[in-house]
Amino acid sequence: MAKIIKHCANKIGRAPGTLLHTGEKKLNNVLIEKFTYSKKDCIFEKISDISKLNNINKKDYITWINICGLHDIKALEEIGKIFNIHSLTLEDILHTEIRPKYEELHDSIFFILKMYLYNKKTDYILTEQVSFILKDNIVLTFQEREGDVFDPIRERLKNNKGKVRSSAADYLLYTLADSLIDQYFVILENFADKSEEIEEILLNNPNQKTLSEIYKVKRELLILRKTIWPVREIISSLLKYDGDLIKKDTEIYIRDLYEHTISIIDTVETLRDMASGMVDLYISSVSNRMNEIMKVLTIFSAIFIPLTFIAGVYGMNFANMPELSWEWGYFGVLALMLLLFIAMIFFFKKKKWM
Amino acid sequence: MAKIIKHCANKIGRAPGTLLHTGEKKLNNVLIEKFTYSKKDCIFEKISDISKLNNINKKDYITWINICGLHDIKALEEIGKIFNIHSLTLEDILHTEIRPKYEELHDSIFFILKMYLYNKKTDYILTEQVSFILKDNIVLTFQEREGDVFDPIRERLKNNKGKVRSSAADYLLYTLADSLIDQYFVILENFADKSEEIEEILLNNPNQKTLSEIYKVKRELLILRKTIWPVREIISSLLKYDGDLIKKDTEIYIRDLYEHTISIIDTVETLRDMASGMVDLYISSVSNRMNEIMKVLTIFSAIFIPLTFIAGVYGMNFANMPELSWEWGYFGVLALMLLLFIAMIFFFKKKKWM
Amino acid sequence: MAKIIKHCANKIGRAPGTLLHTGEKKLNNVLIEKFTYSKKDCIFEKISDISKLNNINKKDYITWINICGLHDIKALEEIGKIFNIHSLTLEDILHTEIRPKYEELHDSIFFILKMYLYNKKTDYILTEQVSFILKDNIVLTFQEREGDVFDPIRERLKNNKGKVRSSAADYLLYTLADSLIDQYFVILENFADKSEEIEEILLNNPNQKTLSEIYKVKRELLILRKTIWPVREIISSLLKYDGDLIKKDTEIYIRDLYEHTISIIDTVETLRDMASGMVDLYISSVSNRMNEIMKVLTIFSAIFIPLTFIAGVYGMNFANMPELSWEWGYFGVLALMLLLFIAMIFFFKKKKWM
Amino acid sequence: MAKIIKHCANKIGRAPGTLLHTGEKKLNNVLIEKFTYSKKDCIFEKISDISKLNNINKKDYITWINICGLHDIKALEEIGKIFNIHSLTLEDILHTEIRPKYEELHDSIFFILKMYLYNKKTDYILTEQVSFILKDNIVLTFQEREGDVFDPIRERLKNNKGKVRSSAADYLLYTLADSLIDQYFVILENFADKSEEIEEILLNNPNQKTLSEIYKVKRELLILRKTIWPVREIISSLLKYDGDLIKKDTEIYIRDLYEHTISIIDTVETLRDMASGMVDLYISSVSNRMNEIMKVLTIFSAIFIPLTFIAGVYGMNFANMPELSWEWGYFGVLALMLLLFIAMIFFFKKKKWM
Amino acid sequence: MAKIIKHCANKIGRAPGTLLHTGEKKLNNVLIEKFTYSKKDCIFEKISDISKLNNINKKDYITWINICGLHDIKALEEIGKIFNIHSLTLEDILHTEIRPKYEELHDSIFFILKMYLYNKKTDYILTEQVSFILKDNIVLTFQEREGDVFDPIRERLKNNKGKVRSSAADYLLYTLADSLIDQYFVILENFADKSEEIEEILLNNPNQKTLSEIYKVKRELLILRKTIWPVREIISSLLKYDGDLIKKDTEIYIRDLYEHTISIIDTVETLRDMASGMVDLYISSVSNRMNEIMKVLTIFSAIFIPLTFIAGVYGMNFANMPELSWEWGYFGVLALMLLLFIAMIFFFKKKKWM
Repeated sequence: MAKIIKHCANKIGRAPGTLLHTGEKKLNNVLIEKFTYSKKDCIFEKISDISKLNNINKKDYITWINICGLHDIKALEEIGKIFNIHSLTLEDILHTEIRPKYEELHDSIFFILKMYLYNKKTDYILTEQVSFILKDNIVLTFQEREGDVFDPIRERLKNNKGKVRSSAADYLLYTLADSLIDQYFVILENFADKSEEIEEILLNNPNQKTLSEIYKVKRELLILRKTIWPVREIISSLLKYDGDLIKKDTEIYIRDLYEHTISIIDTVETLRDMASGMVDLYISSVSNRMNEIMKVLTIFSAIFIPLTFIAGVYGMNFANMPELSWEWGYFGVLALMLLLFIAMIFFFKKKKWM
Repeated sequence: MAKIIKHCANKIGRAPGTLLHTGEKKLNNVLIEKFTYSKKDCIFEKISDISKLNNINKKDYITWINICGLHDIKALEEIGKIFNIHSLTLEDILHTEIRPKYEELHDSIFFILKMYLYNKKTDYILTEQVSFILKDNIVLTFQEREGDVFDPIRERLKNNKGKVRSSAADYLLYTLADSLIDQYFVILENFADKSEEIEEILLNNPNQKTLSEIYKVKRELLILRKTIWPVREIISSLLKYDGDLIKKDTEIYIRDLYEHTISIIDTVETLRDMASGMVDLYISSVSNRMNEIMKVLTIFSAIFIPLTFIAGVYGMNFANMPELSWEWGYFGVLALMLLLFIAMIFFFKKKKWM
Repeated sequence: MAKIIKHCANKIGRAPGTLLHTGEKKLNNVLIEKFTYSKKDCIFEKISDISKLNNINKKDYITWINICGLHDIKALEEIGKIFNIHSLTLEDILHTEIRPKYEELHDSIFFILKMYLYNKKTDYILTEQVSFILKDNIVLTFQEREGDVFDPIRERLKNNKGKVRSSAADYLLYTLADSLIDQYFVILENFADKSEEIEEILLNNPNQKTLSEIYKVKRELLILRKTIWPVREIISSLLKYDGDLIKKDTEIYIRDLYEHTISIIDTVETLRDMASGMVDLYISSVSNRMNEIMKVLTIFSAIFIPLTFIAGVYGMNFANMPELSWEWGYFGVLALMLLLFIAMIFFFKKKKWM
Repeated sequence: MAKIIKHCANKIGRAPGTLLHTGEKKLNNVLIEKFTYSKKDCIFEKISDISKLNNINKKDYITWINICGLHDIKALEEIGKIFNIHSLTLEDILHTEIRPKYEELHDSIFFILKMYLYNKKTDYILTEQVSFILKDNIVLTFQEREGDVFDPIRERLKNNKGKVRSSAADYLLYTLADSLIDQYFVILENFADKSEEIEEILLNNPNQKTLSEIYKVKRELLILRKTIWPVREIISSLLKYDGDLIKKDTEIYIRDLYEHTISIIDTVETLRDMASGMVDLYISSVSNRMNEIMKVLTIFSAIFIPLTFIAGVYGMNFANMPELSWEWGYFGVLALMLLLFIAMIFFFKKKKWM
Repeated sequence: MAKIIKHCANKIGRAPGTLLHTGEKKLNNVLIEKFTYSKKDCIFEKISDISKLNNINKKDYITWINICGLHDIKALEEIGKIFNIHSLTLEDILHTEIRPKYEELHDSIFFILKMYLYNKKTDYILTEQVSFILKDNIVLTFQEREGDVFDPIRERLKNNKGKVRSSAADYLLYTLADSLIDQYFVILENFADKSEEIEEILLNNPNQKTLSEIYKVKRELLILRKTIWPVREIISSLLKYDGDLIKKDTEIYIRDLYEHTISIIDTVETLRDMASGMVDLYISSVSNRMNEIMKVLTIFSAIFIPLTFIAGVYGMNFANMPELSWEWGYFGVLALMLLLFIAMIFFFKKKKWM
């Protein structure tokens, strides 16, 4: 999640609709999963021959086709032809750096979301673009690589848990988007935990490293925010959609999803505000430490400089310095120095510097 | 009120509508209070057998059922069945970390608010989620634990004070929400008082602790704000509601409540602005103290360093140093030092450093 | 104008519409002024018996009733009954800490504004809540204490100056609100003057006190702003009102008033921006002074520390130090020191520190 | 352009519509210019007798009457009567401190703009309020004093250049407003130049004076902004106007003017952002210089303090100090000191402080 | 891209619609390219005699006329006459400093965009204004100089790649605007790269130069933003256009372009936020370095000042100083000094300053 804009310069100047995969190649082969299900049964297939996707029973079954890997443009063109996908849509699916977006086409709904996968062991967040197409009784999803947040849904499909098997395709679409967006909470929790750790350090023992950590958090929140804000528009557009593809019953679920999105945005903004507060706290605590250092320096200097001066005076070699020959001269001067020392301590105690 | 997002990771991946209580278990048993009242009489019962809730006289009486404790999912499912509550709604009631929300269902109004209880003795703010359902002549409220801000309303119900007994169920709903939102003022007053204390300290004797207190106030206001802003939308939605559940007469009360909410939001924003001002004040006063310290150091150094130098000169052991043998050499040098000392004092007085 | 939220905790928990005066008691008796006027004559009465307000000639005369003092709840309840005022409205009138608000009731217009009275002698701003009710041919105003900005209007009523006597009740309402809002300009001028004084000091001789003065101005502007922003909505609502109570002819005056309000808000925001600029200026000038101090310290130290070192060297007591016995050794060292001194001065001049 | 709000306290308390000139008296006599023109001819007159304005040929000619000087209230009242101007409008014309505004009256359009005249020689910006009234075939303009930006239009009228003579009165109005608003670009260019100068200084040799210059620019931009933002609303209202006074053909010109206004606002905001950036830059460069100073101090102190200490040690007068009597003791110590000196230089070079 | 407003003072005071080229003269001759194409063939001509533009076959062919060079006003007036362009539109085309704008005229669409050309070798961004007119089957583009981002489109036209030859004129317009706006991504990538370089430096070894680089980036983003924001409005207006000039089929492409624009604006805002974060980081790291310097100074001073004092004491010349004559006095003092030295080191280690 480090780059703000990835290099897509090689895309510039091509005709619109030219297919070009702008992400890195993350997978060797295109993997296609196919779930065909109805209330009664659910068939799961791994498909290698794309042409097999041609004859799908759209009447009695709902089909979910999950395509992993976007580098094989030919395969994608073939899929595009089978499902009659507009070339601009295909271009968007391949162009993995674009802003999350929503589009209503005459017979289908198309949207793109970012999927975040947090790996606890490596403390690393994997980002991936997932495109959704809903059409007749078919839901198509396109991912950049294997590994996603959809396993619980696969489970529910296979074992007929929850409402998904007995609902229409729009409910599947909702449940996929929901599980993806729910993952944002995990990411944000992760940020909240990090923020709290940093806070703890800030109030106790801040150092230069703390600052760059705050900065890192701020920067990642900035990028996260850039991909989360458009999600609101997307879900809001889904809510406003008034065609046949989304049933009335599903609306309440989408509204629920919308509230989640709002809640996520709220949290991102709160975290950003907190991060700003941390910078202030850091700068203030650095100033405070500077004060502390200055105090030590000032106390040492102010105490010993006058004493050293007195010693210097009686180190002069004048022939006629009466004090030098006094019996108790030396001890008198020592006493004087002690007195001055104590006075200084008092002075700084009064100033509350000690 | 310390956490920004509570851990709800165990919720991720479950089917929507799966009931799961995400808060801590705050109560052993589910406590159910039931008020059945009309203009003439008011019956108060503590109910332990949930099935007794089945036969409620919805025609002649208004009923308020207050449920405390959300950990017993079975009990809640039973209640859900009796009152025909949507599974997503029940999920929201149990999920105690969600954003305050409002939902109009075909035969009921449902909203969620945060209740703040300030305990003066412990100087601690208890947060709790309260869900409200208005349906026919029934008001249902769900709380996380015992202890709330509704005692004055219980009182008024029992003793037929105010308008509540002679009004419809919507008025009860309003009066419950009103007493909950009024409590926000208490919390904000508390913050305002704290802010004023901190200000007092800031202008007199700020220290590192003051900073972390400002920071704490800022942070809590951030979280408070996150739960208060949605309240405006909720009350505004109540105002815009145009079904039968809310009577025309109650509208003026809800509008009044709306104004209170605006006023609360105003105050939160003003407090936030003040807290920002305090950070500035703190940083400035730290800089000021640094200046003060620097001045002391500079004055001591600048006065005694040249004097020490002179003493050093006459401490040199050259064979031929004519001044050393002068009769009044020593006293002359002392006089010179005094002169320099006085000149320095003047110099710093002129610079207004002393 | 020092408190952000005044204590109204004793109000919490009471039934809505319960009358309770939340301000301090600022007057012993409720004072009632009554102006009854038409184009031809104007009768002014001070009324002590509230029941006399019962028989008002609403047909031929316009009546302005000005009530000072809100602590006598019984009297207010009586007035409420006579003029048929809703209990929530009465509650708002008594609750002197609420946000300025506007309400259209079926037969009347009700709004609340804050009145600021600047006392030049004490340099103190008095705040007071004023409520306005327009109904038939009657204008009711409620104030917390005696002394207001309405004297010029009283004058005009008595002596038939301006348009007020020959216009309807809505014009009286406008002219009262106008004179109250005009006073805001006086307050803002006062703030602008203070800001300019502080600026003057900032650019010449800032000190710790200046900072707390800036802070005070910022804080008061914050509170002022909180009461001035809602005024815009109120006047805007008056403009949008389309009942009979406000005549077409008065609209142009209200639009004028609206422009004044916008202008006031503009000025408040500009003053706030200026105050922020001042904080920057203050922090910068503190840093500048620190630089100055540091320079003095550095110059003194850097010049005398090496010289003192040289003196130290020739103060060593080694048996074999050939320079010590040289005839011109002492004077040579003095010359060397002078040279170093001059070199240092040049160095600092070149660095532009002197 | 220095004052934020000018003193208009003497206006408070007067009846609305009372004429009172709130600006300074800037002219001895009211000067009235009259241009009567049609496609064929153009007559220019200087008028001293106001009554001559009574008989204007509104049918065949378009008339522009330019009034300079607002202190002679009687004259203005007379003009008001002749052209049937509402007393509130006249009040606005005289009240030279009000916010730019727009008003549609039943038979006329009225608006107020601020005119800025930049005098290159004195580097001073003159502000003046100009009011425009369009009515039938007459355009009235009111200025505070002689000297304006309308000379090119006078020229065009007299010599029949451009479209103005062959167009209706609304085009004259547009062209007057256009030339006034174009002048804002000159002012902003001036600010941009100043900003660039300050930037140059900031990056090279900032001092305390630079700061107060930044502050001055920020402050003036604040005030400029306050008068420029309302212009947008005014031109936008002109665009939305749908009466007869403005012809369809002129609309495209007004739209063009609107774009100019947007462009001006954009520039003001950009300049404000830049000024904020400058403050940051200033504070940072002050900190940088402080660092520089500190480095010099630290290097001098850290090098010579240990050396002086060594010299001090061998300046002690102990009877038994074997080193003192060594033949090469003195030179050994000198060598040691040199070594230390070189080590220190290395240390600071490594720290990149030298 | 350095100037905020370019000097256009010589434009002030001229009649609206007066043609005047405000940019520098960037080309000697006006260069005119003409592409006449249909599905079947594409004719490319370089035209020197403007009158040849008169007889264009609008029925069977689509024509793209690209005019480079705006200094030859006569030539442009001639072109204006041939294509019936409004004088204000021509004025806008020539006035190369105006804000990007969109205008719908009765028979044509006109808009202005800024073209950015990034030269990798010189690391310099060239800015140029490009005006587009769509009319019947003709697309007119006006550029300031030769060299643009349209080469791939020329290629596609000549070799019949992509959809452009087989589509209507609106698709050509879209594809031209698209290639221009795509270039913004290149510029932004460039900024993102620079920002990342600066970040790298900031976290490792910031210096005064870094600050002015941050400042430069901030300033250029400010100017970039000023020209990019209006693009959104322009494309949005194109989307809302409902005449015949833009076909239904092209709408999906324009919507795609709109999303790109949103994405660009998002990125600009994110980069601005990052730049602000960098300033904070810079200021903090400067403070940190100051702390470091102060620590070194304090450690040296605090260690050696007391030691020097002790040496000074035993350098006094009092007759009666018993320690001086002790056999092990000198070594005792040396040991004491060593002890103090070690204690100090411990003290600073404990304070974590070493």
